[in-house]
Amino acid sequence: MIQPASSTLPVQDARIYPRGGLDVLSRTEVARLRDASAGGMHELLRRCALAVLTSGSASDDPRAARDLYPDFDIQVTQQDRGVRIDLVNAPAMAFVDGEIIRGVAELLFATVRDLAWTAIELGEDCVSGELDSSAGITDSVFGLLRNARILQPSDPNLVVCWGGHSISREEYIYTKQVGYELGLRGLDICTGCGPGAMKGPMKGATIAHAKQRRSRTRYIGITEPGIIAAESPNPIVNHLVIMPDIEKRLEAFVRLGHGIIVFPGGVGTAEEILYLLGILLREENADLPFPLILTGPTIAAPYFEQIDRFLRLTLGEAATSRYEIVIGDPAAVSKKMTAGIRKVREARIAHKDSFYFNWGVDIPLEYQRPFVPSHEAMAALDLHHGRPPSALAADLRRAFSGIVAGNVKEDGMRRIEQHGPFEIHGAPDMMQALDGLLRAFVEQRRMKIAGEYRPCYRVVA
Amino acid sequence: MIQPASSTLPVQDARIYPRGGLDVLSRTEVARLRDASAGGMHELLRRCALAVLTSGSASDDPRAARDLYPDFDIQVTQQDRGVRIDLVNAPAMAFVDGEIIRGVAELLFATVRDLAWTAIELGEDCVSGELDSSAGITDSVFGLLRNARILQPSDPNLVVCWGGHSISREEYIYTKQVGYELGLRGLDICTGCGPGAMKGPMKGATIAHAKQRRSRTRYIGITEPGIIAAESPNPIVNHLVIMPDIEKRLEAFVRLGHGIIVFPGGVGTAEEILYLLGILLREENADLPFPLILTGPTIAAPYFEQIDRFLRLTLGEAATSRYEIVIGDPAAVSKKMTAGIRKVREARIAHKDSFYFNWGVDIPLEYQRPFVPSHEAMAALDLHHGRPPSALAADLRRAFSGIVAGNVKEDGMRRIEQHGPFEIHGAPDMMQALDGLLRAFVEQRRMKIAGEYRPCYRVVA
Amino acid sequence: MIQPASSTLPVQDARIYPRGGLDVLSRTEVARLRDASAGGMHELLRRCALAVLTSGSASDDPRAARDLYPDFDIQVTQQDRGVRIDLVNAPAMAFVDGEIIRGVAELLFATVRDLAWTAIELGEDCVSGELDSSAGITDSVFGLLRNARILQPSDPNLVVCWGGHSISREEYIYTKQVGYELGLRGLDICTGCGPGAMKGPMKGATIAHAKQRRSRTRYIGITEPGIIAAESPNPIVNHLVIMPDIEKRLEAFVRLGHGIIVFPGGVGTAEEILYLLGILLREENADLPFPLILTGPTIAAPYFEQIDRFLRLTLGEAATSRYEIVIGDPAAVSKKMTAGIRKVREARIAHKDSFYFNWGVDIPLEYQRPFVPSHEAMAALDLHHGRPPSALAADLRRAFSGIVAGNVKEDGMRRIEQHGPFEIHGAPDMMQALDGLLRAFVEQRRMKIAGEYRPCYRVVA
Amino acid sequence: MIQPASSTLPVQDARIYPRGGLDVLSRTEVARLRDASAGGMHELLRRCALAVLTSGSASDDPRAARDLYPDFDIQVTQQDRGVRIDLVNAPAMAFVDGEIIRGVAELLFATVRDLAWTAIELGEDCVSGELDSSAGITDSVFGLLRNARILQPSDPNLVVCWGGHSISREEYIYTKQVGYELGLRGLDICTGCGPGAMKGPMKGATIAHAKQRRSRTRYIGITEPGIIAAESPNPIVNHLVIMPDIEKRLEAFVRLGHGIIVFPGGVGTAEEILYLLGILLREENADLPFPLILTGPTIAAPYFEQIDRFLRLTLGEAATSRYEIVIGDPAAVSKKMTAGIRKVREARIAHKDSFYFNWGVDIPLEYQRPFVPSHEAMAALDLHHGRPPSALAADLRRAFSGIVAGNVKEDGMRRIEQHGPFEIHGAPDMMQALDGLLRAFVEQRRMKIAGEYRPCYRVVA
Repeated sequence: MIQPASSTLPVQDARIYPRGGLDVLSRTEVARLRDASAGGMHELLRRCALAVLTSGSASDDPRAARDLYPDFDIQVTQQDRGVRIDLVNAPAMAFVDGEIIRGVAELLFATVRDLAWTAIELGEDCVSGELDSSAGITDSVFGLLRNARILQPSDPNLVVCWGGHSISREEYIYTKQVGYELGLRGLDICTGCGPGAMKGPMKGATIAHAKQRRSRTRYIGITEPGIIAAESPNPIVNHLVIMPDIEKRLEAFVRLGHGIIVFPGGVGTAEEILYLLGILLREENADLPFPLILTGPTIAAPYFEQIDRFLRLTLGEAATSRYEIVIGDPAAVSKKMTAGIRKVREARIAHKDSFYFNWGVDIPLEYQRPFVPSHEAMAALDLHHGRPPSALAADLRRAFSGIVAGNVKEDGMRRIEQHGPFEIHGAPDMMQALDGLLRAFVEQRRMKIAGEYRPCYRVVA
Repeated sequence: MIQPASSTLPVQDARIYPRGGLDVLSRTEVARLRDASAGGMHELLRRCALAVLTSGSASDDPRAARDLYPDFDIQVTQQDRGVRIDLVNAPAMAFVDGEIIRGVAELLFATVRDLAWTAIELGEDCVSGELDSSAGITDSVFGLLRNARILQPSDPNLVVCWGGHSISREEYIYTKQVGYELGLRGLDICTGCGPGAMKGPMKGATIAHAKQRRSRTRYIGITEPGIIAAESPNPIVNHLVIMPDIEKRLEAFVRLGHGIIVFPGGVGTAEEILYLLGILLREENADLPFPLILTGPTIAAPYFEQIDRFLRLTLGEAATSRYEIVIGDPAAVSKKMTAGIRKVREARIAHKDSFYFNWGVDIPLEYQRPFVPSHEAMAALDLHHGRPPSALAADLRRAFSGIVAGNVKEDGMRRIEQHGPFEIHGAPDMMQALDGLLRAFVEQRRMKIAGEYRPCYRVVA
Repeated sequence: MIQPASSTLPVQDARIYPRGGLDVLSRTEVARLRDASAGGMHELLRRCALAVLTSGSASDDPRAARDLYPDFDIQVTQQDRGVRIDLVNAPAMAFVDGEIIRGVAELLFATVRDLAWTAIELGEDCVSGELDSSAGITDSVFGLLRNARILQPSDPNLVVCWGGHSISREEYIYTKQVGYELGLRGLDICTGCGPGAMKGPMKGATIAHAKQRRSRTRYIGITEPGIIAAESPNPIVNHLVIMPDIEKRLEAFVRLGHGIIVFPGGVGTAEEILYLLGILLREENADLPFPLILTGPTIAAPYFEQIDRFLRLTLGEAATSRYEIVIGDPAAVSKKMTAGIRKVREARIAHKDSFYFNWGVDIPLEYQRPFVPSHEAMAALDLHHGRPPSALAADLRRAFSGIVAGNVKEDGMRRIEQHGPFEIHGAPDMMQALDGLLRAFVEQRRMKIAGEYRPCYRVVA
Repeated sequence: MIQPASSTLPVQDARIYPRGGLDVLSRTEVARLRDASAGGMHELLRRCALAVLTSGSASDDPRAARDLYPDFDIQVTQQDRGVRIDLVNAPAMAFVDGEIIRGVAELLFATVRDLAWTAIELGEDCVSGELDSSAGITDSVFGLLRNARILQPSDPNLVVCWGGHSISREEYIYTKQVGYELGLRGLDICTGCGPGAMKGPMKGATIAHAKQRRSRTRYIGITEPGIIAAESPNPIVNHLVIMPDIEKRLEAFVRLGHGIIVFPGGVGTAEEILYLLGILLREENADLPFPLILTGPTIAAPYFEQIDRFLRLTLGEAATSRYEIVIGDPAAVSKKMTAGIRKVREARIAHKDSFYFNWGVDIPLEYQRPFVPSHEAMAALDLHHGRPPSALAADLRRAFSGIVAGNVKEDGMRRIEQHGPFEIHGAPDMMQALDGLLRAFVEQRRMKIAGEYRPCYRVVA
């Protein structure tokens, strides 16, 4: 282990080869990854790789890792048996006695794989037209997931777990218990792949899967380049996918998962709930079974009451028919999810839809187009009563998305530093509810893991 | 799930088939297992199976399970594809939504396999002479382990973890951390397969093995019919072996393990330490590398100081050269163990010994012959200075073994109920130290999980 | 490759390790194999190993290999990762560019495994009583097969193919075609593991299994120390079992196979047919489905007509209900076998018998007791009309068995050299038929692969 | 099995699911395959599927299968667990007792996979520019092979075997023997996947691989839509790839194979030799090791002498340095190939090239651009002395390619029927040699399997 002068934390160099040998890149793909120029991916790769290597760190500041490991670099080479990764000044925490943790190595190769795919298939040379249609975007989500070998024709059993990266110890233990009960029933887990509610269910399921002797388990983590630095993937994740942006990431969750469980969380979790409800409330999806359970330990009951009230106020009472709230009962959550997924299975067969990709759910273009949270865009959100629930949910989703960006994504943080907090306008009661919700998140320390939280938004009624 | 009147806890019936199909019994073996007559194994099978099915229960009273499930029964049938197990009024806790937990089912089949082997190979028809020689007993230990498919020609990596079933939360978490660090370094775990220090290292290693993508992991539990009811195996155990008695069980630990870690525990742990040191202090074993680490969290430091003092007093200062005490440093424990096992590997190659079975360690007949802790036998133990350390350790081991029996084994408990506590005689300073040690175990609640402890022994100087 | 002066054929030394690492021997077992003294197995091991290493040689003279490789030796050592085999002056034909053919290495380890098991379990120290009862002998056959990991709980699909080692090219191609058709239907093959009709079906099945993508195929070869030198196993055999004598070998065929196909052959094949029919004609086995097909190409039609006549004459017309003769139609053979095995499957389920071992077939002690073909024993055979078919078949079987021994087994050949041909007495018409059959075997060159055949028997009416 | 009036051969319907579940198609891809309109792939799919289903048929007439199975149809559906294939009036010869042969089913799925990939990636919507550059074409070859999961990072061991589909029995047996010797040395086989010299090596290797216990064997067949009907793939092929045209197919052979063996053949084989030598004789490839062995049984010696003379005459003496001729010695061929591949391995490591794809070999655009053998194009070939060997070889390759098309490809056959034989012009001595070579092919019956051969060319000096 070398400790160069320029760094404050122990680092080491390493040369890593894929184990299964599944990853084969073409010369063009390797070149694209190495190219540090404008169109190249090198800086993005460096950033994502560093996030993977600092897995388990307590910080959610995306720039912290880079400050701690300023001399870190990664090179991808094509080589006799496939792809080789060279790491320079990499965080020593990813190694055990000088050997990289195998799970971390796998996540590194997944990162290389997804960025190479994105560079070629969604890059500048790509026929841009494809990403202008809803079907085209869905095809690109499908393509990336297939390339990541996530699409397996097994029976429906994938539960997406959403929830905050910054939650209390009691809430964390509860997510483990739910994961354990899901695992006992043969269910696999998919999360946003960071700490907190994204890690607990996987840990619980790991123990249950061991007891059930499930050997082909799936702990899928779906992330995006913008967030991976703040929520670095835990190496229990054995399938990591990096989607190009939050909209494709959300679509991946919805098309992959056979049911969704929401644990307590902050604005990111609120964004996810609004995205999903906005879609499920569309008439096109009225007959689509989609189990959605909001759950937490007893102490989290007030939290879910507040969310529930906010959803009723903004999306109307009808929204409540698409979710169920369960407090303090992990086994019940698991049983309800199992029953819900059984219905999903039947519906897929009836509609000749695939088990591994929910082609049937209708996601309109406005939910797919990337939203860039500039100050103008945030101020222009139309948060008033009278709009169709799906349309209003889309803008509410964008509002939360912008706050997430202002909190933990680099681009967003820079904007806030330059121009001050976002202004969000809307109907007074809605703005009041929104403000209340956000304040509660701050008070409950759901916004950030450490330090004092300085709001990146201002609600204007 | 049926709830018959005769039982106080939910039960259910089930029919279980082996999954891998590895278990093939002859007609004679099946007949022996079904035979409830004197020479038959049925009652023993029923008892062990119930222990497996109540895994995770908080009680260490061997008779509790039988009182709670009085109508439980098990039948083994030979059938088209192999062996079938029928359960009647089995504890519902072993099932998830009516389906038996796969790990529990595997442990049931292991139980059937080992009892069948014992019935045939060590049964009454067996040439009794074989078990009268030291080599013969070692051969029978080898035979049972081979039949259980435990002997794998992989690189040395098996760490035996000893320690109490009744330990504090802080100590338990520490055992998990040590297991995690062992798992990160590719080490497998072998324990006595009950709760507490026998479960923690396996859980920790499970998470680490998942991160290291180790798929062919071994969590070996070695038990005996006398103790299994008090220390029911956790289903993380994926290789269960039931040795016929404590002496063969201890020999199995020593011949299988490439190193041993001792966590805080009670009399059972003390028995194990004295057994091992008594053997390692023999001149025949002087050159044999055998890593032995006593470890616990900071609060356990006084405990190990007391053990250390007792060992110095009874076995002499020389004994300390065979173990090392590490306090509060899981990573250091794991690194030392890794280094120690490396030496074991070299020695095995140098001495042309196998990796999977330590033929080289000399275990004399007095350590192998079953000790039946009658009041006479306990009173006759020769606990005085001046004896060779190995001989004294053998008798000290027997003293602790008798107390374990009086505490949690059915036969022993019955004897104490009938004839009052054992009397243990010996040199005054040794008896004083022994008494102090046992009192400390009682005070620290290491003797029993629940209820007031009533000593089953009296120390007579 | 070294070419020592003492040998006429190229030889080489080698050190071989098991690949799967499945073979674990105890010190006692290794010692027994190495012990060259009277009770020891070394000479037997050397003989069997040489047979395995000369696989594919054209000779059926058991002493030829030893003359060609006089300095060959084998040593078995227990070693760090398991068992190691050292070969000295081994036939170079078992190697490719200095590397042993993996299949040959596997057969060597199987040889070591079976001889070790036989030495311990059926050796001198064994309670001899066990082998005095019919059930005891069956248990020992079961035990050896289980130890050889042949007993797998899969669906019934094992076809035993009998037939000569010395057959015509046209007949050989026909056995390949039948094997191909069997393989296409997912059937596995078991033979006596020599050349000719014992190799053809396996080769045909190998191609068919490749086309059907069957990866867990079984090509089981069952042999005995007395015959292995004359019929050395082809390395397509991936499960070799060495039974201690011809009677246990025949019992293994009958209890393992789900159906039997008989190709043209000589006296060995006749022995097998009589053994099987003698058993199947017992009243105890009247309801037992057991598909038995005699088949060959068109040119073999006269051969089977003669066999058929002989069976009718000796065992009566009833015997013909237990077999079917199919000429020149491999696909029909395969279809009939498939249909027959389906009935076997149903019967096993109905009678709660296992799929992998036919406990249900009744084999009386007179078929199990080893027959030593001394001149006295051969002369004492009772070959007259009026005896129950099963009893007469038993003695006819012994007559053929003695001739096989006189032809190709070392002990038998020595006896003939010393005392002249066996004399066989019996009813005139039976003796005439027997003589005619044997003469035909000689004329058709079915007795021996090469050279002039000198009869080892004399038929006395 | 149904026998519809419209067909002269037995047919049956079937519904087929992928076993490994590896094949996942998007909705767009499925739609493209089903679309029977101009841009659609349906007719092509139907044609290729029929070729796969008539594997083993003796005919090399591409239109024969369609005449025999006029009502055959195939539909691809996306379905719960993946892709489903429905067959209507499919050749019964692909089934065993109503069940499709698994290998045939796998080849069908491979066909669907490759045609879908080609339709999307090389289809009309594709940026046409990519296929205009040499690097772009190589990238598309790489992409198709990667998508077919052919690119595995194992050690170099892939031998490409070229040779005729119509060869003598003696030559066929020789190809099996060479395959056997290659298989014994752990080499895998890649051929054009038809009968004759394309099937023999795979069969031989299958037996050798079974003896060597190689379970992850590769029998790669590379074909093209134009030829597959004439040379239907044998189901021993366990990796089938359909390249879009002969030029990409040849490039795939050269970039995948670590060495090439050429057996006797006709014009197709001559085309392959000229393609390869033309490339290897380029200065850019001068230092590239590439084992190339021409071999056959003794009776084939004159054939190779003639080929050798032709190559010396046209490409010059230098050409002979790139190949070796071995007659009648399968083991020597295998040893030479093993030695040659060892050098390839070293060179790949030295040049940091991958093991699984030969990026290093320089293939110029003129060898990559599809050659359409119209009468004009054939007449315009420049076959004169004085041109650089590589350029002349390119045109000679095209000449042979055109004759192959005129012999067995549908488009080419139609052209010949309409406009009479091609005219080929060139230097007199070259034309004479060419004519001699072609006449010899005709005389040796290497042009066509059955019937009288009517030349599709005229050589004009």
